[in-house]
Amino acid sequence: MPHRLFERHQKTLQSALEAIRARTYWSAYPEVPSGKIYGETARDAGLAAFETRLKNRKFPIDQPNTGKFIGGEVSPFGMKLGVTYPQVDLDELLAAAQQAMEAWSKSDVETRAGIALEILDQLNKRSFEIANAVMHTTGQGFMMAFQAGGPHAQDRGLEAVAYAYQELSRIPATANWQKQVSKTDVIRLQKSYRIVPRGVAVVIGCSTFPTWNSYPGFFASLMIGSAVVVKPHPGAILPLAITVEVAREVLRDNGFDPNLVTLAADTHGKPITKKLVAHDEVKIIDYTGSSAFGEWIESHAPQAVVFTEKAGVNSVIIDSVDDLKAMAANLAFTLSLYSGQMCTTSQNIFIPRGGIDVGNEHKSFEDAAWAIVDEMNALLSDSKRAAEILGAIQNEETLKRIDEAANEAEEAATVLRPSQWVLNEQFPKARTRSPLVIKVAAGQKKLYMREMFGPISYIIATDDTPQSIELASKSAKELGAITWAAYSTNPQTTAAIEEAALEAAVPLSINLTGPIYVNQAAAFSDYHVSGCNPAGNATLTDSAFVTPRFKVMQVRTALPQQVDQAARSTEAAAAASA
Amino acid sequence: MPHRLFERHQKTLQSALEAIRARTYWSAYPEVPSGKIYGETARDAGLAAFETRLKNRKFPIDQPNTGKFIGGEVSPFGMKLGVTYPQVDLDELLAAAQQAMEAWSKSDVETRAGIALEILDQLNKRSFEIANAVMHTTGQGFMMAFQAGGPHAQDRGLEAVAYAYQELSRIPATANWQKQVSKTDVIRLQKSYRIVPRGVAVVIGCSTFPTWNSYPGFFASLMIGSAVVVKPHPGAILPLAITVEVAREVLRDNGFDPNLVTLAADTHGKPITKKLVAHDEVKIIDYTGSSAFGEWIESHAPQAVVFTEKAGVNSVIIDSVDDLKAMAANLAFTLSLYSGQMCTTSQNIFIPRGGIDVGNEHKSFEDAAWAIVDEMNALLSDSKRAAEILGAIQNEETLKRIDEAANEAEEAATVLRPSQWVLNEQFPKARTRSPLVIKVAAGQKKLYMREMFGPISYIIATDDTPQSIELASKSAKELGAITWAAYSTNPQTTAAIEEAALEAAVPLSINLTGPIYVNQAAAFSDYHVSGCNPAGNATLTDSAFVTPRFKVMQVRTALPQQVDQAARSTEAAAAASA
Repeated sequence: MPHRLFERHQKTLQSALEAIRARTYWSAYPEVPSGKIYGETARDAGLAAFETRLKNRKFPIDQPNTGKFIGGEVSPFGMKLGVTYPQVDLDELLAAAQQAMEAWSKSDVETRAGIALEILDQLNKRSFEIANAVMHTTGQGFMMAFQAGGPHAQDRGLEAVAYAYQELSRIPATANWQKQVSKTDVIRLQKSYRIVPRGVAVVIGCSTFPTWNSYPGFFASLMIGSAVVVKPHPGAILPLAITVEVAREVLRDNGFDPNLVTLAADTHGKPITKKLVAHDEVKIIDYTGSSAFGEWIESHAPQAVVFTEKAGVNSVIIDSVDDLKAMAANLAFTLSLYSGQMCTTSQNIFIPRGGIDVGNEHKSFEDAAWAIVDEMNALLSDSKRAAEILGAIQNEETLKRIDEAANEAEEAATVLRPSQWVLNEQFPKARTRSPLVIKVAAGQKKLYMREMFGPISYIIATDDTPQSIELASKSAKELGAITWAAYSTNPQTTAAIEEAALEAAVPLSINLTGPIYVNQAAAFSDYHVSGCNPAGNATLTDSAFVTPRFKVMQVRTALPQQVDQAARSTEAAAAASA
Repeated sequence: MPHRLFERHQKTLQSALEAIRARTYWSAYPEVPSGKIYGETARDAGLAAFETRLKNRKFPIDQPNTGKFIGGEVSPFGMKLGVTYPQVDLDELLAAAQQAMEAWSKSDVETRAGIALEILDQLNKRSFEIANAVMHTTGQGFMMAFQAGGPHAQDRGLEAVAYAYQELSRIPATANWQKQVSKTDVIRLQKSYRIVPRGVAVVIGCSTFPTWNSYPGFFASLMIGSAVVVKPHPGAILPLAITVEVAREVLRDNGFDPNLVTLAADTHGKPITKKLVAHDEVKIIDYTGSSAFGEWIESHAPQAVVFTEKAGVNSVIIDSVDDLKAMAANLAFTLSLYSGQMCTTSQNIFIPRGGIDVGNEHKSFEDAAWAIVDEMNALLSDSKRAAEILGAIQNEETLKRIDEAANEAEEAATVLRPSQWVLNEQFPKARTRSPLVIKVAAGQKKLYMREMFGPISYIIATDDTPQSIELASKSAKELGAITWAAYSTNPQTTAAIEEAALEAAVPLSINLTGPIYVNQAAAFSDYHVSGCNPAGNATLTDSAFVTPRFKVMQVRTALPQQVDQAARSTEAAAAASA
């Protein structure tokens, strides 16, 4: 039966395998939330399904549980979700996962790939429902919640399936090993090889991209034969609960134990993650979240292989441009999208205090800085568009951070653009804030040489571009960085920035204008997080994201030695006559 | 120029790539030390080259050094080698390695593969010289020193080159990324991808297999663009010093900085390994050696990815056989070879105390145990053969351990075969000991449930085969194990042992007789060390041995957006008229 699924989705897998090698543009799941693609009723049906979740309150999952239901999600757009999830006993849950893994880990790679691809396909069909769940947990605007939480996340999941398949499908199940040890004798071994997962896997989701950041680890671990315990952020459980539900359905329908995929929900008040990741039975951990907690996991789970995406400080180095307005418009969108709550949002923008060349002209620092602010104001001038682009602020803490940054700036620096509440007509209670832009001097490291998550950015006046590069490098090496943008019309300068990015291990985007942004990372083409600076130890997705999760166990069985008796006799006769 | 080397060795690489996928028997470097293969003068020339090393005393390497020469190797066959090596300042050495890495890491994969394959080819030509060096540092007999230290080690190195090439060659250097964002507009990015090593690599050699265990890490790190600091065991420097010399010559001849490969020798009195592995600049570590020091490295080098092969306790489970003599002869050789100083030598042999079925007969425990001892005595009855098989004892500590085990056994157990000094006619001063075989009861865990490195084995009387399996599993999980042997004519029992081996993560060999032994691991076919029990965290060689060593750094550069102006006009006209 599962082979039927492999056949059904084989073309998708084949295209994904080609895509990760060519790394040109490709996508399996359409990003346009169009009725023509997803069905004319899909949008309404997705919303209705989401609303039914809120009405039913209890999210049923027939996994081992304590009988109690827990949860406390609040939409950044204002309402309490009120959905609760089965509370789990970790020992019991992990025992069930371990048991479920037995048959799964012995199934063949095609079977697992078929099921993984079917789960992705089913998730894709639920994209509108998931979009609403993502929107009302993360605070993303609907369009972004649909794209990043739906098809883009599914693409990232498929990418992990492709990387795993690429590695696993190369390992033969058996080999007939024969070695000629003399003129007449051949020794023979029958060898068998079995792919063995390190053990139960845990995927720890974050509050801003619960699906996009979790699907790669989820599908990589499932592919190599592990059971996966999904541990969502207590503020963004619903999107992953739906994911778990879909996965369990597909597994059950295909004869596997649904406890291969379980949900370990918790609340802010009673967190369970530390106990979970340090548990003896947990051998693989994928984590996305704060640097502090990521580092705690890296050093407190020696029994497991740990893949982390933590936080960092992303820089923009502005040296010279052809078209100031085009650059400014591009950056304005990057800084505004989802109120700067992406791990890829730029925080520090370095501009020489003497200004920059723009085409054949020279523009002052102030001109360049204000160009960005002006474009931001224009972009956000239409309140409907602003609401959609900004979304809402996921976490109360971010509001405090904005206020703190603004207060500090009023004392010691200059606020170029204040952060403001923005009316969201559809959700008047939404927790909104537009981007705060602060001008500082290069010497004011206390202000900008730290992670300030949210819609907070610093435009930093430097001596010159070499100093900009130096400061960006320093911050990447010390605080981590996930992505850099640079603008220069000078090939030598561009080359110098490339070298610095390489050394600081930060992916770099050069001279982006138009509708392509530094905070976007495309599946099958972009390596997300270098894994070589403090922003994380893993990359979405490369082979190293997959290969440490499993081992190959081999059995060698002796076969009767082959002896050429005739040749032996001839040899013996020759020896006797010699 | 290096491409010429790639072309020269391309067939070898291609065959290796096919071999690691098919995993049938293949070898690139002939294991027979024959004049017909290596040249009629090769044997004498190799010995002469070795003797010249001893005469010259100072081993010259033109790497950064303090001017002082150090070393204190003593051949287990009796003589002091007297060879000394440049002492290094680690900061200076690592700085030179770092600098050398710049050009190397930017060279293309074919260039690096060509050079790696040329180094292997040159090493192969030096197999006789290396064999003498391995023999007189490890204590291996000449034939074994030649095979394991020469061609088999080279095969293992080539295997790592193949795994690295397989991973690296799939990553494109560039991609032209184009995405249709509307009916009329296509956004375009030029993407470039560069393979970046995590940083300088260190390979820590062991005293018993200085080349075989070091070459995989050495070549894997070289292939991904790292510089490699070779840190030999203070008792077995010479084989790796020759390796470093060969590698530096090939690198220099091909226009690269020879400091890509350096030697960090030390002495028992002034060890430098702890300082080296904890050094900030060291980002990749390959280690073979004791469990205690391996665990120290695993927890004291957080700045690096660490690959370890440590020690373990290998078990043999005897349930039933067709041919007792054939089994006994096979095990006798395994226990005798190199006086049991292989990480793959069996230590614990479990036999039901009620005896075993042999064909249609039943034999007592004593019959089975004595069959092994008798075969061992027969094998070692010829003193010339015994000298060649046993070799010499690498480390004084092993002698003490043998005495300790014998004394304990006299008090609490039964010595079935005493360990004895064996005259080596060629080297009368050789530190030799034949295998000690002790009979114990399953309850005497204190005696056998511990690693007793060297020619020490325990034949353990168990209740039955299920208890044998249980004890072998327990020891593998707690102490680690690199390989298990099992003998059973009952398919159900064999299946149960397979399951247990899988769970304990130990490769298993079933019913080996004739000239193929549990302590042998064949390159391109056998995965050596599971990496999932305390005997080590890495496998020689799988993809996971290569992929964590490097990352891909990407640069995206905006290309002008493609706009279909005609279509845009048509659209605009259509919109206006609508």
